[in-house]
Parts: sequence; C-alpha cells; structure tokens
Amino acid sequence: MNGADLRIGIAGITGRMGKLLADAVPLAGATLAGGIGRDGDLAALARESDVVIDFTVAATVSRHAGILAGAGTPWVLGTTGFDPAAEADIADAAARIPVFQAANFAPGVNLVIALAERLGATLAAETHDAEILEMHHRQKIDAPSGTALAIGAAVARGRGVDLAAVKDSGRDGHTGKRETGAIGFAALRGGQIVGSHSAIFTSAVEQITLTHHALDRRIFAEGAVRAALWLAGRAPGRYGMRDLLGL
Amino acid sequence: MNGADLRIGIAGITGRMGKLLADAVPLAGATLAGGIGRDGDLAALARESDVVIDFTVAATVSRHAGILAGAGTPWVLGTTGFDPAAEADIADAAARIPVFQAANFAPGVNLVIALAERLGATLAAETHDAEILEMHHRQKIDAPSGTALAIGAAVARGRGVDLAAVKDSGRDGHTGKRETGAIGFAALRGGQIVGSHSAIFTSAVEQITLTHHALDRRIFAEGAVRAALWLAGRAPGRYGMRDLLGL
Amino acid sequence: MNGADLRIGIAGITGRMGKLLADAVPLAGATLAGGIGRDGDLAALARESDVVIDFTVAATVSRHAGILAGAGTPWVLGTTGFDPAAEADIADAAARIPVFQAANFAPGVNLVIALAERLGATLAAETHDAEILEMHHRQKIDAPSGTALAIGAAVARGRGVDLAAVKDSGRDGHTGKRETGAIGFAALRGGQIVGSHSAIFTSAVEQITLTHHALDRRIFAEGAVRAALWLAGRAPGRYGMRDLLGL
Amino acid sequence: MNGADLRIGIAGITGRMGKLLADAVPLAGATLAGGIGRDGDLAALARESDVVIDFTVAATVSRHAGILAGAGTPWVLGTTGFDPAAEADIADAAARIPVFQAANFAPGVNLVIALAERLGATLAAETHDAEILEMHHRQKIDAPSGTALAIGAAVARGRGVDLAAVKDSGRDGHTGKRETGAIGFAALRGGQIVGSHSAIFTSAVEQITLTHHALDRRIFAEGAVRAALWLAGRAPGRYGMRDLLGL
Repeated sequence: MNGADLRIGIAGITGRMGKLLADAVPLAGATLAGGIGRDGDLAALARESDVVIDFTVAATVSRHAGILAGAGTPWVLGTTGFDPAAEADIADAAARIPVFQAANFAPGVNLVIALAERLGATLAAETHDAEILEMHHRQKIDAPSGTALAIGAAVARGRGVDLAAVKDSGRDGHTGKRETGAIGFAALRGGQIVGSHSAIFTSAVEQITLTHHALDRRIFAEGAVRAALWLAGRAPGRYGMRDLLGL
Repeated sequence: MNGADLRIGIAGITGRMGKLLADAVPLAGATLAGGIGRDGDLAALARESDVVIDFTVAATVSRHAGILAGAGTPWVLGTTGFDPAAEADIADAAARIPVFQAANFAPGVNLVIALAERLGATLAAETHDAEILEMHHRQKIDAPSGTALAIGAAVARGRGVDLAAVKDSGRDGHTGKRETGAIGFAALRGGQIVGSHSAIFTSAVEQITLTHHALDRRIFAEGAVRAALWLAGRAPGRYGMRDLLGL
Repeated sequence: MNGADLRIGIAGITGRMGKLLADAVPLAGATLAGGIGRDGDLAALARESDVVIDFTVAATVSRHAGILAGAGTPWVLGTTGFDPAAEADIADAAARIPVFQAANFAPGVNLVIALAERLGATLAAETHDAEILEMHHRQKIDAPSGTALAIGAAVARGRGVDLAAVKDSGRDGHTGKRETGAIGFAALRGGQIVGSHSAIFTSAVEQITLTHHALDRRIFAEGAVRAALWLAGRAPGRYGMRDLLGL
Repeated sequence: MNGADLRIGIAGITGRMGKLLADAVPLAGATLAGGIGRDGDLAALARESDVVIDFTVAATVSRHAGILAGAGTPWVLGTTGFDPAAEADIADAAARIPVFQAANFAPGVNLVIALAERLGATLAAETHDAEILEMHHRQKIDAPSGTALAIGAAVARGRGVDLAAVKDSGRDGHTGKRETGAIGFAALRGGQIVGSHSAIFTSAVEQITLTHHALDRRIFAEGAVRAALWLAGRAPGRYGMRDLLGL
C-alpha cells in the first residue's frame, strides 16, 4: 500500500494538533478518513481508517486501547501524561495491533535524544556537569517539559544511572553547591515559543551544547503522519521514533 | 593624585578575589598598601591606605563600617548578602567617608542592567514576557544570582512594578500558565563558568535577548580597582557603578 | 479618526508581504481600501485610501512618489534597495505628504538598533570588538542583510565613525589579524528563518550580546499597519520607526 | 609504565602553547624531560624523552619527522598548516614510530566532529541546510578555522560528498539563493575568545545546533599530554583523537 491509498483517521480533530493533523494528512499524500472530537465514535472511525492518530487526553487512553485493539486498527498515540494502568492497557493492545507512541514527533528532537545519550556516555559525570534547558510558550502548565525529561533520561541512561536519583529541577534560594553527577533542569516561558531544548555539558575547560528549536508547530503533525505511514502493515507490537528513524 | 601614587589596601586578601585584587592593583598603576585576612587589623591597614577594597563576608560589614569611617578612609565594598542592620551602618559611614558599593564590578554587567531597565520600559509586560537566565560555576550556593536579581529588578523598575510582586523563580512541576507581567528566573550550574546572564523578552512574534558573559574572573578585580581609583578624593556619600560609568 | 475608520490601500498586494498586510489591516481595526499588484492603478487606489502601504520593488519608487504626492495620500514605504535618484524623489514627496519609511518594521528590531548605538558609544572600539551576525532563510539573495547593516551603522554612529570605513564582511582565507575598530559581519542562511540579528561586543574579559529573533513574518506586516495608523493626519515630512517608537 | 615515569619533551616550549604544555605535564603526573625553542637540539631532547610533543611551525615538520624516526621516539604532533611533502614525511616516520596527530586536542571538539558526521548522515541535505559558525580571538589570521573545516568535512563525509564541492564560505554581497547541499561557513573574531564552533542544521520547521566552547586554552595542552600518555608504548603507525577517545 502506498501513501496515497492510506486512510488516516484522527482522534482529537477539534484540538490544535488535530487541525494541523488534518492539514498534514493530504500533504503527505494520504487520505483523511475522518475525525472525531471529544464525544465521537472511535469504533466507527476505526472501521473507516487504516491507521488512527490519537492526540486526545490521558483519560481516554485505556478506552481507546480496547476499541482499536478490537477493531485491529493500528494506533499512533501522541497523548501524554497517562498513568500506569493506562500504560498496561497500551501493552495489552500492542499484543494485537501495532502501536506507535511518542512524546514528541519531531524527528530532530528524537535525534537529539539519541545523541544526548551518547554525550552522557562519553562525557563523564565526574568532569562534565549536565544541564537541560527548555523554553516553551506562555500557556504551558508544567515544567520541565516531557521532552526535557526525555533528554535528561537519555543522559542518565548514557551514564548508567536513574534520572530520578540525579534530577535537580527548579533551583531557587539556598541550593548549596551543585552535586557531582546531578542532571539539572531549568525552564523558561514566554510568547508563543513552539519548543526549544538544550543539553549542556560543562567542564572546567569546555562546554558542549546540543540544541533543538522547533520553529513551527506543524513539525509535530508531520511527524505523526509520517509515523502513521510507517506503521501501516507492521506486525503487532510497540514502536517509537527510534524505530522509525533507525537511531 | 594620580593612580601611581594611590595606595590601595585589601580586606580579604587571602580569598580568591583578594588574590586577583592584589594582582590587579599594580597593573592599574596603583600601589598595593597591604592586605589583611580574616583576623587582620583593619585600622592599621586603613592608616596605610588611601582607599580600602573590601571583599570579605557579610558578618564583618558593620565592624568595617565603623573602623573605616573612624579612619576617614574611602571604602570600596564588594561584600554581599548583608542584613538591614549592616545596611544602616553603611549609610552611617557614608556620612563621613565616600563608600562605593556594587554587587558586580564588571562594567559590562552594569551596562546590561541599565539597558535591561530600558527594555523593560519599552517592551510592555502585556506583550513581551521577561525572563532572566543565568549560569555560574558548580560551587555557587544560591540561585538566582545577585546579578540576575539586579537585572530583574531593573526590568521591574522600567515597568513601574516591584520585583517581589512579579518574581517567578525556579519553575518545577505543575506551574500553571505563565502570568502576564511575571518576571521569570532560571539558573544553570556547571563547571567553572565565571558568570553569564541573559534578559529575554518574548512576544508572539519576536524575541529580544541581552546577554553578558564574564569570560575571566579578573574582570571583577579590575572593576573594583577602577572603582578605587575613581573614589579617592570624592566627597562622603554613596556611590555605585552607575556613577562610575555615567549610565 | 480612529483606526476603525482608517482606509488603508496596499501597493504590492499580490506579494508575500502584501498578503500578510491584507490580513493585518482588519486585525488592527482598520479597513482594507483595496490593493494593486504590478500593473495596478495607484492613482485610483490613492483616492480610495487614507494611507497607502507600499511594498513593491525599487523601480517603482519614483513613480509612486509622484502619484501619492499628487493625490495627497500619506505613504508608508517598505520597499528597499532604491538608488539616490529615487531617494531625492522621496524627499520631494515628503514636502507635500507625510512619508514613513523603514527597512524593517519590527518594533523590536528598531529598539535593538537604538540600543546598538548606545552600546557602540559606551563600549570603546579599543577594548570591545564589535561583530554583527545575522541568519535568514535560504531564499535570501544578499548578505549581510539590510538590517544587519543598519545595526552596524548604529554601532559606528555611536563610535563617531563611518561604517564604510570600518566594515569587515565575509571573512574567508588569509584575513590577517582583526583590526581594532573594525565592525565585522557574518551571514548564515538556512531553512525558513524569518530573520535573526545579533550585535556582539567582545573584550578580553567579557562579551555583551544583543539579539533580535523575528519569530513570525507577520511581525513586519503588523509594524507597517501600525505605522499607517500612526502616520494618518501627520504633517508632511519624513518619519521612521524612531518617531513611532519614541526612541 | 605509568604516567609518573613517563618523560615528556616539548618542541616549541617558548611559545604560548609550549608554556601551557610545561605546566600540564606535571599536573598529569608525568615528568618534563626538557624543551627546546626555535634553534634547540631535537635529537638531544629525543634521547631524554619517552615521547615528544611538538607544537612548532609547518617548516620544521619534515626535519622533525626524520630526527624522531631516527631516535625511535614517539611523536605527538600539534603543528598545522604543512604541505603534502611534509605529509609524506610524516607517513614515512609513522612506519618506524607511533605518530599522534590532531588539529585540535580538546576532547570535546573531537566528539563534536564525530557527532557532526552523524548529524550530516541523518539530516539530509535536501531538508536541512548545514552551516558552520566559529568565533576566535582577534589575533587569528585565517578563516574559517581548521577546526571549523574539520567539522564541515565531517558533515560532508556523513552525506557522502566532498567538502570542497559544497563549501560556501564568507558570504558577502549579491550571493544569490543558498544552494541545496551547500555547507556554509561564517567566522566571528573578537577579544580573547579561545575558540567556539557550532554546526547548525536548519529545515523549514526545526533547527538543530551542536556547539563546542573552549573556555580555557589549557584544554589543548591537557589534551596533548593525554595523547602523549596514551601514545607511549604503541606500535608504529598513525593515531588521532578518534583512537584516543574510542569514537
């Protein structure tokens, strides 16, 4: 099946991402099978679609897992922030359908995450202090961003440690000296910045910085549609940007 | 009196800044009159000096104020973090001797502070979100830096508001949307970074950033010696970098 | 007259900027009086308009000057690259109508230009090397950008020198040591970057950088419409962003 | 043999790098065997040394190759800018002694070069425009820096092209549109900047930047001494930072 024949359905089509997805599908040479908002009928949409792209809210994840697994329709999941129970339901679905999940569908961000792991592995915690800096638009309600945490987790993985054990976020007041091995996080907010992330490694004599700037929100929609094209026809299982990008 | 005749004494000569000051005095064409460490005799040093440069600790400020005012010796004060009582003792001393005080003696930092006030006045809080980002070496024990706070206070002054009312430092976790008019602060730590500060103003369509990088710790010593040369022979009163730089 | 009653005509409405202007006029509460492309009738448009915004090509400037001066219609001119003869025709028109001219209508860029002059005046050529860095989209055909040159000219003005005498653009090969007092220029190109400009002042011990990032091309259209609203009802003469912004 | 027993001789000890090398040898736990300036006796130095570190000038390379190969003394070569004949003499020497050569001994720079190749391979020329930006101190006499060219060559290698065919350095004047596949270079100069390099990849929707800042010139001396410790006892042959770092 080539892209022109692929029918893509969108769960969450009335949201900001949903509208960008609706634009991105035909631009990628695929067909928009339809879309549902908050109260739409996902089972009906699944029957009309070769793949469903889902950017909704955490509360819907478990229900969507059951419906799409039942329909046998591949699932591209961009919803974030769900709990372990939903996580288990996703795993169950992945036994029956291919599931592609990512916190950030920008290809470049995922390359940055892969390289951050390598930088973490090469630049030792004893010599190079690692910090993650991110900036987002003024509407963002949490800090640090999920992507910043993913970059920090990659650095930690490269160093063979658990991020939770070394995370140092939101410095303010009497902090004491920086701990060797800590991975620091800082968050800036302002305007309509789509999303910028930097991993900064600083020793006594050098500083190495790896930065990703998302310049246009469409990058996320294009990445999700690309994931849908890639996912169609795969075996059941769990997939992510690393698989798509061959990182 | 020209610089060559000026005798400069250093209180705190055994500290990191003290050693840099001892190097900077002859380079500026002045004479090192001597220096004291933690338990030295400031009264004796004051008798040998035309100006005393003081980089010690907050607990010494009130005692030093009394000694130097009694000796009639001009005082360049780089110690920070003192309490309101010490502040009052400085004011008393300034009725009898010239006192030059700064949190940061780098000339460029003080220019940045002056321009940050102008940016704050010109770029309205309703359209341009203001953030202050700083990075310092891993030994620094507080955040944000005093200089970052001074830059933020300048932005607030430009906007006719009080920094304490709009300060938003150390974002972490569920922060909610950014408040209009807030001045955000974020702190990075790593390696031996001497000190970097940025004021970042972001609207929906543009971003204006003003940044100062201190590249060499000697910048602070040179600025303090320059202040000493400028201060000698002034009338009693309080002076700062704005006076020196004519900002 | 308030903005809602102001009728704005657009010369060059079929270009990329023209389309953004057509969107920006009603958003600013004004009325779109009409627009013309390459072969349109400017005299007719001028009769229907309280102000004409003109983003066309250099070859049209002299003709437009005559038509708008004859019609008595205020002129916001965003066209660039014209020769001295056209410049003289603009001056003639400005004796009869108000003319607002700018190479860049982003308010923040013009603030950056004003502050660059102040930085140039304060940070001496003997101690602080000045460099201008810009980045633009891959379609741009000249380097450095007009705005980069305007920032450099402001630094030169602050230092009391002529930019032409100190400009050092496009370093490549065996350049020799940097001249004291030179103002360097470097140009990056890539993707669809709307426009980024930095003035960088570097001494032996510090670096001060002032940066403007245009994040959205609409910034230029919004600035031109704001200029039109400001210009209506002014006396004949020449005006620019400094007048509008009170810089 | 451990570091404490290793005797390191320095060719070029009177230059700026030579002095930093003399400081770095004992800090690394090795022994300074001696050093020679412009007219010193390299053969005598070679007899006293287990390794010679050579930071001299291009004109000495061929002569040094012969002397060190004759003496059987391993050679760490930091001299740059030599011609193909010298290159052939180095190759001859490497048949008899181990030769370690690098244009830049900062470990982080070499990591950045390795990652730049990977970025070039992953981010296609058709979508991501690659630019290399560097900044150095005001005394530097050539542009772009050798390290910038090495980064550009790595990007080209990642894309399977020859840098010479796609290099676009020193844009100035009427440049025309950027060519797809070009690798651009821009050079900034000012103050005493030790050396900063960025590889910047920009598409229509994202920008990925990898930056190295050398914060202290000692980084190069430390890297060269580390290379000497690593080189002692190796088989004859040619080695570089990639071997040392396992990149």
